[in-house]
Amino acid sequence: MNKQDIPDIIISRLPVYLRALRHMQAEGKLTTCSQELGTGVGLSAAQIRKDLSQFGEFGKQGTGYDIAFLVDQLRKILKVERVWDVAVVGMGDMGHALSRYQGFSDRGFRVAMVFDNDRAKIGGQVEQFVVRDTKEIVTAIRESGIKVAMLCVPEAAAQGVTDLLVEAGVKAILNYAPISLSVPEGIYVQYLDPSIGLQRMTYYLE
Amino acid sequence: MNKQDIPDIIISRLPVYLRALRHMQAEGKLTTCSQELGTGVGLSAAQIRKDLSQFGEFGKQGTGYDIAFLVDQLRKILKVERVWDVAVVGMGDMGHALSRYQGFSDRGFRVAMVFDNDRAKIGGQVEQFVVRDTKEIVTAIRESGIKVAMLCVPEAAAQGVTDLLVEAGVKAILNYAPISLSVPEGIYVQYLDPSIGLQRMTYYLE
Repeated sequence: MNKQDIPDIIISRLPVYLRALRHMQAEGKLTTCSQELGTGVGLSAAQIRKDLSQFGEFGKQGTGYDIAFLVDQLRKILKVERVWDVAVVGMGDMGHALSRYQGFSDRGFRVAMVFDNDRAKIGGQVEQFVVRDTKEIVTAIRESGIKVAMLCVPEAAAQGVTDLLVEAGVKAILNYAPISLSVPEGIYVQYLDPSIGLQRMTYYLE
Repeated sequence: MNKQDIPDIIISRLPVYLRALRHMQAEGKLTTCSQELGTGVGLSAAQIRKDLSQFGEFGKQGTGYDIAFLVDQLRKILKVERVWDVAVVGMGDMGHALSRYQGFSDRGFRVAMVFDNDRAKIGGQVEQFVVRDTKEIVTAIRESGIKVAMLCVPEAAAQGVTDLLVEAGVKAILNYAPISLSVPEGIYVQYLDPSIGLQRMTYYLE
């Protein structure tokens, strides 16, 4: 099946299923069913079955899903059975937090390089990384083959740094700056703007 | 119109429109059109028009949208024409970063209270806040009437703290812990798990 045929809204749910399944694994469970998985992620069993059926036949009627098998399949589908090196740009609070974030290690990512444009920070140490000058983004990232970046620079700098990342060959950007980025076709951006997350919820509050 | 009638996927886009419109405002623009707004957020003009039409008639054929008016309307719809006090639980890197995050101030939110369960941190200062004991969550949040919280505790503590927040009357939780939370009906959770954002994109990479 052509991957363009599968709606992005379904793709967006796969990482959530994977996280819930890993959690079950950590609790020592071996099998689950769409009902239980649905409860864990706040969706109906029918939705789970429909989403997963896009990618093949993962469960057996009556016996449910083998968790380890489904985890393996989802990791392959999402391409996180490998580890992606990630560049972090912007060594403010958020960049610091991400550089030492423990939640990437077994989920397909590893911070490999960090950048800032502040003379006071360049050459200094953040965790095990020496902070590089953002001016080196194109050469350093090209050389290393990094395809994934996290953007934690101020709003005013975000588009300029994005242009450098794209020029460097980065294909996927997780953007913490509160601004919509312009990128060419074939470059993916996800936004982790806390205000957006909060505003999505206040709509529903009285 | 009953708000349950409007799909959540549309609600999820309104904060993004608002952010883009505020950005145009900051650049001194007075009017825009669905085409331009669409380009800014990566959606079609038709989608923008369809989404906004759920809430009324905001633009005029031929003249487009008055940005200030549309910003006001979206802020009212999302209930961020007021300022929501927010509690932050967990004073690790992420909690620290959020406590001093500058991006909330004119977007409807203000950090008002911070918590941790670490004796070494309780009573200490983070920004202008004195760190409170997580044991005080129920009394302190109830007393203050806070309805919104950001959860930055480790995975193992997240569900327990969530239960306290719900008991305290919190209705909306922005969760940074890499775990799906169980909450009763009428409580809203949004997840800001960076691994999830990254995995959504690696699916598309070669």
